[in-house]
Amino acid sequence: MNGPNLNLLGSREPEVYGYDTLDDIKGRCEALGSELGFQVDFRQSNSEGEMVNWIQEARTDHAGIIINPAAYSHTSIAILDSLLASEIPIIEVHLSNIHQRESYRQHSYVSKAAKGVICGLGAQGYDLAMRAMAQLLEKK
Amino acid sequence: MNGPNLNLLGSREPEVYGYDTLDDIKGRCEALGSELGFQVDFRQSNSEGEMVNWIQEARTDHAGIIINPAAYSHTSIAILDSLLASEIPIIEVHLSNIHQRESYRQHSYVSKAAKGVICGLGAQGYDLAMRAMAQLLEKK
Amino acid sequence: MNGPNLNLLGSREPEVYGYDTLDDIKGRCEALGSELGFQVDFRQSNSEGEMVNWIQEARTDHAGIIINPAAYSHTSIAILDSLLASEIPIIEVHLSNIHQRESYRQHSYVSKAAKGVICGLGAQGYDLAMRAMAQLLEKK
Amino acid sequence: MNGPNLNLLGSREPEVYGYDTLDDIKGRCEALGSELGFQVDFRQSNSEGEMVNWIQEARTDHAGIIINPAAYSHTSIAILDSLLASEIPIIEVHLSNIHQRESYRQHSYVSKAAKGVICGLGAQGYDLAMRAMAQLLEKK
Amino acid sequence: MNGPNLNLLGSREPEVYGYDTLDDIKGRCEALGSELGFQVDFRQSNSEGEMVNWIQEARTDHAGIIINPAAYSHTSIAILDSLLASEIPIIEVHLSNIHQRESYRQHSYVSKAAKGVICGLGAQGYDLAMRAMAQLLEKK
Amino acid sequence: MNGPNLNLLGSREPEVYGYDTLDDIKGRCEALGSELGFQVDFRQSNSEGEMVNWIQEARTDHAGIIINPAAYSHTSIAILDSLLASEIPIIEVHLSNIHQRESYRQHSYVSKAAKGVICGLGAQGYDLAMRAMAQLLEKK
Amino acid sequence: MNGPNLNLLGSREPEVYGYDTLDDIKGRCEALGSELGFQVDFRQSNSEGEMVNWIQEARTDHAGIIINPAAYSHTSIAILDSLLASEIPIIEVHLSNIHQRESYRQHSYVSKAAKGVICGLGAQGYDLAMRAMAQLLEKK
Amino acid sequence: MNGPNLNLLGSREPEVYGYDTLDDIKGRCEALGSELGFQVDFRQSNSEGEMVNWIQEARTDHAGIIINPAAYSHTSIAILDSLLASEIPIIEVHLSNIHQRESYRQHSYVSKAAKGVICGLGAQGYDLAMRAMAQLLEKK
Amino acid sequence: MNGPNLNLLGSREPEVYGYDTLDDIKGRCEALGSELGFQVDFRQSNSEGEMVNWIQEARTDHAGIIINPAAYSHTSIAILDSLLASEIPIIEVHLSNIHQRESYRQHSYVSKAAKGVICGLGAQGYDLAMRAMAQLLEKK
Amino acid sequence: MNGPNLNLLGSREPEVYGYDTLDDIKGRCEALGSELGFQVDFRQSNSEGEMVNWIQEARTDHAGIIINPAAYSHTSIAILDSLLASEIPIIEVHLSNIHQRESYRQHSYVSKAAKGVICGLGAQGYDLAMRAMAQLLEKK
Amino acid sequence: MNGPNLNLLGSREPEVYGYDTLDDIKGRCEALGSELGFQVDFRQSNSEGEMVNWIQEARTDHAGIIINPAAYSHTSIAILDSLLASEIPIIEVHLSNIHQRESYRQHSYVSKAAKGVICGLGAQGYDLAMRAMAQLLEKK
Amino acid sequence: MNGPNLNLLGSREPEVYGYDTLDDIKGRCEALGSELGFQVDFRQSNSEGEMVNWIQEARTDHAGIIINPAAYSHTSIAILDSLLASEIPIIEVHLSNIHQRESYRQHSYVSKAAKGVICGLGAQGYDLAMRAMAQLLEKK
Repeated sequence: MNGPNLNLLGSREPEVYGYDTLDDIKGRCEALGSELGFQVDFRQSNSEGEMVNWIQEARTDHAGIIINPAAYSHTSIAILDSLLASEIPIIEVHLSNIHQRESYRQHSYVSKAAKGVICGLGAQGYDLAMRAMAQLLEKK
Repeated sequence: MNGPNLNLLGSREPEVYGYDTLDDIKGRCEALGSELGFQVDFRQSNSEGEMVNWIQEARTDHAGIIINPAAYSHTSIAILDSLLASEIPIIEVHLSNIHQRESYRQHSYVSKAAKGVICGLGAQGYDLAMRAMAQLLEKK
Repeated sequence: MNGPNLNLLGSREPEVYGYDTLDDIKGRCEALGSELGFQVDFRQSNSEGEMVNWIQEARTDHAGIIINPAAYSHTSIAILDSLLASEIPIIEVHLSNIHQRESYRQHSYVSKAAKGVICGLGAQGYDLAMRAMAQLLEKK
Repeated sequence: MNGPNLNLLGSREPEVYGYDTLDDIKGRCEALGSELGFQVDFRQSNSEGEMVNWIQEARTDHAGIIINPAAYSHTSIAILDSLLASEIPIIEVHLSNIHQRESYRQHSYVSKAAKGVICGLGAQGYDLAMRAMAQLLEKK
Repeated sequence: MNGPNLNLLGSREPEVYGYDTLDDIKGRCEALGSELGFQVDFRQSNSEGEMVNWIQEARTDHAGIIINPAAYSHTSIAILDSLLASEIPIIEVHLSNIHQRESYRQHSYVSKAAKGVICGLGAQGYDLAMRAMAQLLEKK
Repeated sequence: MNGPNLNLLGSREPEVYGYDTLDDIKGRCEALGSELGFQVDFRQSNSEGEMVNWIQEARTDHAGIIINPAAYSHTSIAILDSLLASEIPIIEVHLSNIHQRESYRQHSYVSKAAKGVICGLGAQGYDLAMRAMAQLLEKK
Repeated sequence: MNGPNLNLLGSREPEVYGYDTLDDIKGRCEALGSELGFQVDFRQSNSEGEMVNWIQEARTDHAGIIINPAAYSHTSIAILDSLLASEIPIIEVHLSNIHQRESYRQHSYVSKAAKGVICGLGAQGYDLAMRAMAQLLEKK
Repeated sequence: MNGPNLNLLGSREPEVYGYDTLDDIKGRCEALGSELGFQVDFRQSNSEGEMVNWIQEARTDHAGIIINPAAYSHTSIAILDSLLASEIPIIEVHLSNIHQRESYRQHSYVSKAAKGVICGLGAQGYDLAMRAMAQLLEKK
Repeated sequence: MNGPNLNLLGSREPEVYGYDTLDDIKGRCEALGSELGFQVDFRQSNSEGEMVNWIQEARTDHAGIIINPAAYSHTSIAILDSLLASEIPIIEVHLSNIHQRESYRQHSYVSKAAKGVICGLGAQGYDLAMRAMAQLLEKK
Repeated sequence: MNGPNLNLLGSREPEVYGYDTLDDIKGRCEALGSELGFQVDFRQSNSEGEMVNWIQEARTDHAGIIINPAAYSHTSIAILDSLLASEIPIIEVHLSNIHQRESYRQHSYVSKAAKGVICGLGAQGYDLAMRAMAQLLEKK
Repeated sequence: MNGPNLNLLGSREPEVYGYDTLDDIKGRCEALGSELGFQVDFRQSNSEGEMVNWIQEARTDHAGIIINPAAYSHTSIAILDSLLASEIPIIEVHLSNIHQRESYRQHSYVSKAAKGVICGLGAQGYDLAMRAMAQLLEKK
Repeated sequence: MNGPNLNLLGSREPEVYGYDTLDDIKGRCEALGSELGFQVDFRQSNSEGEMVNWIQEARTDHAGIIINPAAYSHTSIAILDSLLASEIPIIEVHLSNIHQRESYRQHSYVSKAAKGVICGLGAQGYDLAMRAMAQLLEKK
């Protein structure tokens, strides 16, 4: 699940965020998903409310959530609450290393609900999150 | 009017939020409403924008607002502004005692626009808010 | 139980605190008390130590405490400690909405011990607190 | 582009925000726009997500953005990110002088992306922003 | 009216607080009082509650209050509230210059209710306060 | 009225502040002034005291003040006080967008006295301020 | 000398404060006192003013003060002042380790006047304080 | 010695600062001065540097300084330093009670150098300061 | 490279840190290393100075650093400086999700030098870091 | 176990730290140890890493730890972590009353792991800590 | 260039600032200047505005600036701006070690523009600054 | 005495720290030392504990300490304490101007013990420190 402005990936400041578009990442995730035996439901929204709705649905329809909440990481307690209410494992991903950015980007509410956090490793962060999720689900 | 994630009441952490579902509360409110001579318009949304829209409508179509803004209490100046612009009485309700929770849940923008605040009394908080609203409207 | 300066109610800034005197409120509480089947022990003190003494007594002699700690809300850890030690339900009441007042009045130590908090609804806040207490005691 | 609650202009606290409605301002902007040779696309939304969508569209379809983000100025990093990603000039307008208001209204994330900021000059601020935009586009 | 520990004046750190005892100051105040046509009611208490009681009495029985609240200046909102409720002029006196002392002694709640504040001038501060009070009462 | 170091405009960091000298701006202001029917009295000083003197004079001799207080924006309560005492309209101008600069440049005391603030639009900010002043004076 | 709510020891949260009542501690102190050649004057009060009175008396009537100021540690500058004025040795005792509790319990004004501080060692802390006092008095 | 904008007294917000002009106050001070046997040198400046110069002169030419530093109270470490270097008694006067004003007016650097501070008593504060100065000089 | 106290893994609070010992992790890393074509140099130290020495050596002798700095994450600018001076890629790993721990554990100096950060995924975090490092080195 | 610079005791600022050398204290501890039936292992180090090593060893080889961490109290999370991992009782000792010293010496990380804290009682603090340890071990 | 109150050197607190007068320092600087081949222009002012003027002149007329800004170090952004605009090397000198003084003297705006800072070495600091300036100018 | 990572000088970010290696600086110091009649003992360590050991030795074996504590400036109270205990003169040197770097590098504990501080003047800072030390030792 991808937060606001991630649909611009690839064309927006590629020297920072890389040349992969969100579609490229989606393709890689689906490929790795079938390798690991997952069915991947890849989404993006610019709306905080819609993200809350999706997380509530995931609660009953999905086994786990990999989320890149983008700007909503820093401001949305509503998304945090919906993640806390979901009883499935959550992994948070950030393309850039948020600890090296502006001070208002260094804090994430979502980290309070996530099992693990991966940041600064670009599009590869999604691959690593999927591998970690696979192992978390296996242990259950 | 109910904020994000309140639609999960009853199934989400019942030891904290109680076993009443939002539908149970709606039923009780409508029952008490007819006793007090009110028509109750009971709503829930996960979207900040939709809540702003509803508050703007309430300004001309309703006599008062009882609001449990949930996570948006702590982050939404937009909801605060729409409440400040509505010229009808407002009562804020929280199921749990927010003063005993994490520091980022102890501050509510909405309290700056509310006539009164009731928190920590669970679903009964809605009943008390309706009684208080009845008396506020009577005085006018 | 009422904290410092509440004995001046009615004559002190009535446009803020209302025209009800503390005796008027006492009368209403006793009336509602007999309706709900309670015996009401209504007190006021300007002394922090006396309030601590009364709370310690209430621990063994009363079923619950409804407290408007006034100025001591913001400064008394001794009252907080005595409330934490009492094992009976506590409801905190404020006549005005403390969240709209000076910053040093927006924080209450007492809220850390209270089951619920009601503020901004004037003398009616006492009525609502008694109804809430009735229900809390019933559940036990 | 206009943020939440600006659709209430004219009827909401006119002594603060003036007697012009948003439609009056739209009319004036379109008139001045044709004088300056612009085509004006005038919008208002109460939804943060919708504003992000519109800013993303403006990136390819418009020459510049004049934005009054209202309450979202102070809380939305998502809108800031979408403005940073748009590569067209941005001017921020506020009807009131936000530096004279409550402390939580004195900080604007949007200012970090804006070329210029105009505040406190009421509806005329829109006219001045259009003149400034005209000159910025000319220089390019 | 004198706050806690002022009864030790003269014997406690005389190099800081001077060699005058509280009785010496009382004598000087009564002498100056009869010169200015006042009847002086000079008191000292170590108890916050007793000071609140006295201020409430002064409200109806005295023309003005000159108060050296000592340690309670920095911690007592209850005394502040009783002073705010009294509708007579108040002048605050401190023997030492509190702005040159420890940081927790540099803030006084009482200053929010006082018409004027005199500090750092030792026992003479009481004389000056009485002269100022005489003039304030004359103007009424 | 122009604050400290603005006499260096044009030669000092032109990529930041533009290539216009203060004389160029003066010329443009006088030209636009005669178009709008104003007589422009254009001054610059490096001295806080001299600026206070000039503002006190403007109080009786001028219809309005357009001020770029430069570094004194951030440190001078004396200039703020003189502006608060002048009963004529004030517009504050900054060449750069101060909200994108060092934290100690993001706060302006002068904004507390100004009717409106324009920043980040370079020398054109002066033109916009004059147009806004014209409209403010007309309304009176 | 013991502060507010310590009279509840033994029955209040024994898993935190231990099963010893205040009377048990008094007995042990008197026993150890006669061993060390002290006469022990063991007191408890819920009133800040009364504690100030007692400390003022101790100044002339006792050789040293062992004080567990409980909640007043954190809020009472009046007690601090009376301790600073007493010219006898002071040892502060806390039953629990206040550094592991809520942030508002981690600061003690009384520590600024105490020769030594002992915390976290339960009722034994009183024994250790008496041994330390014995040695301090011997050195004089 | 009087700081910036005090030359506007009487005409500037008289409901706050009173109807006395600075000349009226000067007259009263000179009258009281001859009564007390002082020669009064009464000055006002809007310039921080000039005030520093005057304080340096006072060091050798005057017996004491009564200073109302106005806005420079809050910002000038240079004036503080010159006062610290002068070895004559200093009394600080404020017309209004600065503790009841905006937060940035509640702190005074000058108080760190003053023997005593008098505030909130209007023009009479100057009289009291002169009486206090008379007594301070007598003691020497 | 592993920081202080990590040698206790497996026996220390296994419900928090897992049952894997540091030797187990070393084994897994070496196994995955040979799969990915790396030679793994696995170390642990309790000494800040020794860690600085090792990082300086790695600068010339190794292709990349995977570091779990444990407690030194939060306090060591010396380690940060040595990492900044090394010109090879760095990935930071934490076993637990530090964002859910005490406030003094939520900030890491090391994150300012790391390319990526992985936390909360237990011993698997090391595997993911090695895969990420493999890809980073490939790109060069 | 003794932290950095304690080896200088006796010769370094004896008016603050006393005339006892560390060897004197060692002697007294060993004497009291044999009286209480303990074997005392008395050490000092200037190295944070070495102290971590020793604490790890104590975990299996000793019954309890009495630690004066000196400067590392305030800065070392590594020592805190090693103490948290040791499952034996810990008592923290400081020679001086750290609550009366510079603000950066008033906070101790080590207090978060200690059962009890004794400070300000000079070399006698070690004796008291040994008595307290004896009692703690007895209870087990 | 020397800031406010430095003209009092030698007679003001000589135990802190030394017995050298500013004239003595001037003499030493001129002597060392001729040794190093410099022409020294040694000035002092109590006025912030005059210092800004002099710095602006130095920009074209001098090769470098050695400045002891005294109290203006801590408050003057105007001086900082004039130094940033001058394109010649700047060395800042303080007689005392400002890091050991009051907290409001520990921050210097001027350090943001200076190439180097020397403090705490008394009048010798001027000599060292001149030697450093000589080397800086040589390198150009 | 040189702190962590200074052994990398010359090869690490030479555009910031200069092209001189630590050996070059050592050579220059020894040369200037023999000119001034000093014997120079030049050392570097990455270990905080080792630096404490060396400072303790210097106390008896050396006449003064010139220290560049690098990263330990900002975090080591242990080094501060050892410097405070040494009774010989101390001069602190930094190659770069720490006041222009990240906020966590702007504070130095070591400055609290140093007689003087020199920063921002590169390798020449060592020369200046030696000259200043020569003068300090002469005065004794």
